[in-house]
Amino acid sequence: MLHRDYDGQTCSIARTLEVVGERWTLLVVRDLFFGVRRFGELQAHLDMPRAVLTARLATLVEAGVVERRPYAPGRDDLLLTERGRELWPVVHQLMQWGERHLVDGGAVRLFSHAACGTGLDAVGTCPACGVTPAPADVETRPGPSASPLRQDAVSRALRAPHRLLTPLG
Amino acid sequence: MLHRDYDGQTCSIARTLEVVGERWTLLVVRDLFFGVRRFGELQAHLDMPRAVLTARLATLVEAGVVERRPYAPGRDDLLLTERGRELWPVVHQLMQWGERHLVDGGAVRLFSHAACGTGLDAVGTCPACGVTPAPADVETRPGPSASPLRQDAVSRALRAPHRLLTPLG
Repeated sequence: MLHRDYDGQTCSIARTLEVVGERWTLLVVRDLFFGVRRFGELQAHLDMPRAVLTARLATLVEAGVVERRPYAPGRDDLLLTERGRELWPVVHQLMQWGERHLVDGGAVRLFSHAACGTGLDAVGTCPACGVTPAPADVETRPGPSASPLRQDAVSRALRAPHRLLTPLG
Repeated sequence: MLHRDYDGQTCSIARTLEVVGERWTLLVVRDLFFGVRRFGELQAHLDMPRAVLTARLATLVEAGVVERRPYAPGRDDLLLTERGRELWPVVHQLMQWGERHLVDGGAVRLFSHAACGTGLDAVGTCPACGVTPAPADVETRPGPSASPLRQDAVSRALRAPHRLLTPLG
């Protein structure tokens, strides 16, 4: 059973927040969009307690947002399902709002349409092509406000341009 | 000072979640979009503890998302600022994701372009006009899955079609 933090609230936003509204959950989802697939990489990149990450992933798997795909005996890759990938507009909008209102000196991360290289606008549309690319067609790279300090494997891999949903390699 | 739940996470989504990522906060913001302006109405509609609502509103005011506007001595209306109104795509996308994946039997709430009456698509665009209306140009009404059970003033007012950001009257 999923949590019922908002019992009595029938609105669909309340139901969505039962799935993705707990602390850390949307940062986990963000990292899966960035191509992180391993538990240890998530833990190192997010600095979050192992037990909390375990619980958040269990909720996401139960809700059909994340699936585990075995790559070795007893070891699973973590992948966004189709339902999970449909959270891209939410994740992108939360980032864009933060970039506009909470960051000085330029973006932390930039997102562009992989097919043509044009930066996406605030609602995730490519101004050159007029399409709203699916996340697999979006490339991300650090912006001028990106921190050079973190040295975990995910932070280092994300210093180069990277297409969403592809493994960090 | 805002909370620092995600210290060390420089990403703009982490910064946004410092403002809107606490439990209940996005439901408060949703209600302000619906036209709720009074503390007591929020509390009755959300069934949330008074102290928690007070704390969430303080965070939102500090972050420039909500402003207090006095309407009588010692009494304030609560209004979304321009920065707060820019959260509409986030709120709408969270609702739409929930409608698609977590609700059976039709939408809990419907959203349409007030100018022409056409239902908005999944990304908030009016298919008839091709524009993405600002929230003040969006009308909401209950869908087939709306609950008829709640009897607080906000739930009753929202049973009729209502333009976002206008007082519930």
